[in-house]
Amino acid sequence: MIIDATCCLEYVIPVEVHAIFMLRPRSGWGQWIMREEFNIKPRVPVIEYTDFYGNLCQRIVLPKGSFHYSMKCRAWVPAELDSQPLALLQTVKQLPVDVLHYLLPSRYCQSDKLGDLATYIVGNAPSNHQHVTSLRNWVHDNIAYERGTSNSSTSALETTTTRRGVCRDFAHLGIALCRAIKVPARMVVGFVHGLEPMDLHAWFEAYIGGRWFSFDATEDHPGGNRIVIAYGRDAADVALASLFGPFTCTTMQVTVAIAPETEEA
Amino acid sequence: MIIDATCCLEYVIPVEVHAIFMLRPRSGWGQWIMREEFNIKPRVPVIEYTDFYGNLCQRIVLPKGSFHYSMKCRAWVPAELDSQPLALLQTVKQLPVDVLHYLLPSRYCQSDKLGDLATYIVGNAPSNHQHVTSLRNWVHDNIAYERGTSNSSTSALETTTTRRGVCRDFAHLGIALCRAIKVPARMVVGFVHGLEPMDLHAWFEAYIGGRWFSFDATEDHPGGNRIVIAYGRDAADVALASLFGPFTCTTMQVTVAIAPETEEA
Amino acid sequence: MIIDATCCLEYVIPVEVHAIFMLRPRSGWGQWIMREEFNIKPRVPVIEYTDFYGNLCQRIVLPKGSFHYSMKCRAWVPAELDSQPLALLQTVKQLPVDVLHYLLPSRYCQSDKLGDLATYIVGNAPSNHQHVTSLRNWVHDNIAYERGTSNSSTSALETTTTRRGVCRDFAHLGIALCRAIKVPARMVVGFVHGLEPMDLHAWFEAYIGGRWFSFDATEDHPGGNRIVIAYGRDAADVALASLFGPFTCTTMQVTVAIAPETEEA
Amino acid sequence: MIIDATCCLEYVIPVEVHAIFMLRPRSGWGQWIMREEFNIKPRVPVIEYTDFYGNLCQRIVLPKGSFHYSMKCRAWVPAELDSQPLALLQTVKQLPVDVLHYLLPSRYCQSDKLGDLATYIVGNAPSNHQHVTSLRNWVHDNIAYERGTSNSSTSALETTTTRRGVCRDFAHLGIALCRAIKVPARMVVGFVHGLEPMDLHAWFEAYIGGRWFSFDATEDHPGGNRIVIAYGRDAADVALASLFGPFTCTTMQVTVAIAPETEEA
Repeated sequence: MIIDATCCLEYVIPVEVHAIFMLRPRSGWGQWIMREEFNIKPRVPVIEYTDFYGNLCQRIVLPKGSFHYSMKCRAWVPAELDSQPLALLQTVKQLPVDVLHYLLPSRYCQSDKLGDLATYIVGNAPSNHQHVTSLRNWVHDNIAYERGTSNSSTSALETTTTRRGVCRDFAHLGIALCRAIKVPARMVVGFVHGLEPMDLHAWFEAYIGGRWFSFDATEDHPGGNRIVIAYGRDAADVALASLFGPFTCTTMQVTVAIAPETEEA
Repeated sequence: MIIDATCCLEYVIPVEVHAIFMLRPRSGWGQWIMREEFNIKPRVPVIEYTDFYGNLCQRIVLPKGSFHYSMKCRAWVPAELDSQPLALLQTVKQLPVDVLHYLLPSRYCQSDKLGDLATYIVGNAPSNHQHVTSLRNWVHDNIAYERGTSNSSTSALETTTTRRGVCRDFAHLGIALCRAIKVPARMVVGFVHGLEPMDLHAWFEAYIGGRWFSFDATEDHPGGNRIVIAYGRDAADVALASLFGPFTCTTMQVTVAIAPETEEA
Repeated sequence: MIIDATCCLEYVIPVEVHAIFMLRPRSGWGQWIMREEFNIKPRVPVIEYTDFYGNLCQRIVLPKGSFHYSMKCRAWVPAELDSQPLALLQTVKQLPVDVLHYLLPSRYCQSDKLGDLATYIVGNAPSNHQHVTSLRNWVHDNIAYERGTSNSSTSALETTTTRRGVCRDFAHLGIALCRAIKVPARMVVGFVHGLEPMDLHAWFEAYIGGRWFSFDATEDHPGGNRIVIAYGRDAADVALASLFGPFTCTTMQVTVAIAPETEEA
Repeated sequence: MIIDATCCLEYVIPVEVHAIFMLRPRSGWGQWIMREEFNIKPRVPVIEYTDFYGNLCQRIVLPKGSFHYSMKCRAWVPAELDSQPLALLQTVKQLPVDVLHYLLPSRYCQSDKLGDLATYIVGNAPSNHQHVTSLRNWVHDNIAYERGTSNSSTSALETTTTRRGVCRDFAHLGIALCRAIKVPARMVVGFVHGLEPMDLHAWFEAYIGGRWFSFDATEDHPGGNRIVIAYGRDAADVALASLFGPFTCTTMQVTVAIAPETEEA
């Protein structure tokens, strides 16, 4: 399917501030970015770099005054979330070097404290993709989706107690549980079609049988109708807009639509 | 100024062939990529990766039959080539680690054999940006631009003898002369407005006073009317389309136009 | 000064276990590694790789039975901790790309929650190296060094409440306070001469005026008598021995001695 | 087997000169570095970094006067060169991203000009490890080992004509032939026991069936009695000592000895 997504940000900036935007989806097995557009006003220099996680980041010094940043993209993505129920979990010694990093606890994913819970949840599930599915299902079934019950500093450990949160919290808990049983896991942020209300979304990926698979603990029937924007250890790594100074965000608007299959870029 | 560029490639593929395309310009100090579009037919998976030089590359397995690849981009670029005549050359010990690589000889730039020529050319030029300007001017003045006098295996050393070539040969010789006097230099390929006939273009950059500066030894009056697509040690690193198997390229078309300043992405 | 350090680890391994050791100091401005020795028994393959932070890591599959790992090194290091009181703090826009990562909160350093405390501590200190010195001094003066009051999951936030801990906790709090005021900071583990009792040590570095400076919030009079083994965002990144499975560590012995200046490697 | 190797370099330096040494072997599947020692006189700062190819490099500013650099290492290595005659060649689409680089022509390996020769040599050899063995054997049988017949700018293309050279030329030709038939190949420099006269040695590796295999086109009966020091595209990347300025090398001495198996580090 072909998805059109946009993100529009408007700021009022009282004094020059350094900002990093991370809103550049990349083509890969799961998505083909057919078109990307970026508009900034006023036009100031933009420096791109690739971070530790392979995300394309844009450094911009926002001048005093109004600042407009908007992006549009069109992507060709599969209709279904890829899944291979029989893909086997790997032992640590089988993992490639650049995946080891995703076994470690991180700011919002205290996997070092969740070993007992994770072991209890997986129970006797076969040591494959279903292991992670059982963790995902547990999070989905035991955490209530309630806006306003968590904030930007809420961590997976707190969510095990409060039992409520938003997509970001669902993802953090799923990641922490995976790492607790030595399955590499990472945070994903992106666009998903059909969210109510529309917003950016967070989910997670687990490394199984030699590759990454997507899991979404928030949605009831997660599909492939999504565009990945960025990867990281947890939310600390994937802030889509980081402004290092005072600012007012006056607009943040996200749209996601399905385009006809016959569309060109 | 705002530049619109396109590149369209059509192939006939007799048997499945693995290909790498390197046609993704990146935003940086010298250019802001406002829009990018990619069309491929048939639609097959595209895997992107970043190579040693920071270029975004696309791996595609081209199926048997016709294959269409086209890209369009719109970029906001300066009108003039950036120049700082007083920027000082650096000694090797001042160079950052990731620039050292660009001091070494490479396939088409046998800098190890051009020390005498380079030293002769720079003569008493002050040890700054003008050093490289004098090398660029010598290449421009002493090499004749003649299509069909060189090919894909022609190297800078041969060009010092034949004294003729195309943009790629001018760039290789400029690079080799820079490295011969221990100035890091790298190959650039991209779009330039106003070429006759229109085609992709090659020029070079030299590292002076802590940053890269552009030099174009081919054109009489090089301006900033250009979009960088890729960087490398020499042409071996920046082939914009590498097909590892038999193929026929039936179309290769490049266009570069200037858009009104008021345009959005 | 010349320092000789050793670390000896003995394990009993019930079933084959994958392990990662991070005990390879590297030469740099602050230290010259003159000699390194590694002994493992039994001899099994060791694969080295460089992690995200530049640490040299060794992957080893430990077979069932007894396993011995020991390392010795001799390093030439400065007698004093390097300090430049007038080095200026940088704004985020001045920071190089690979340092930005060290502004983010991490598992044990919840800098996102410590902005008020950090701002209170630095008060009117001039915006330079002394900013960080005031943070380091506050940690040193307000946290009591008490073994057994913290464990491997204790974070900086908890330490602000308990007001006690060990070197690792002092370092985490120093790091979190730095990041809270947008000064990049990272964890360091290594050998220090003169510790009582002898053990591995943790301290931190802050990025000031374009380079990293060392700060040790634990010791009363920190000197340069130390060898850096590894860097990371916090303790999660710099575990010197990670065993991914059951094991018993029967010996862990660290020695640090000063050698005569006239010694060769 | 356990090998002890040393390399001692003595220089007379007329004016301060920047130097890069690349004499740090690394542990991996084929070798376990048990001990390393480095002595420099006078003692000046040494900065280590990892280059594009994973080599550990040391930057040193050599002061005016005499400069001594020596290294010793002890390594545990297999007695035989590893070989798997049935390991299959891979198509380009199967190659990992970081290996693609080794398909490109380079300064001394003009693989773009050797397709016909390489195809002729391999003839009907099965499309596996024996493909490369046939290339290695052809080089070994058709090139005469003669000191003084080549120099530091001699390339593989020239060697196909002169039919003589030293280990470096044998390696370059082997590499160029591999790449010409789309087998990734890289240069290796290191120590080998039993050379007459003793010196550093060069050979090559080819990527077959998902990993690198060693080939030595120079020696009649190459064994595993060797320590890899550095990898690169060709000799341009693996100069073990690069001095960027005037110098006199008064001593260069290499020793390689076999130690008793019972030795510790």
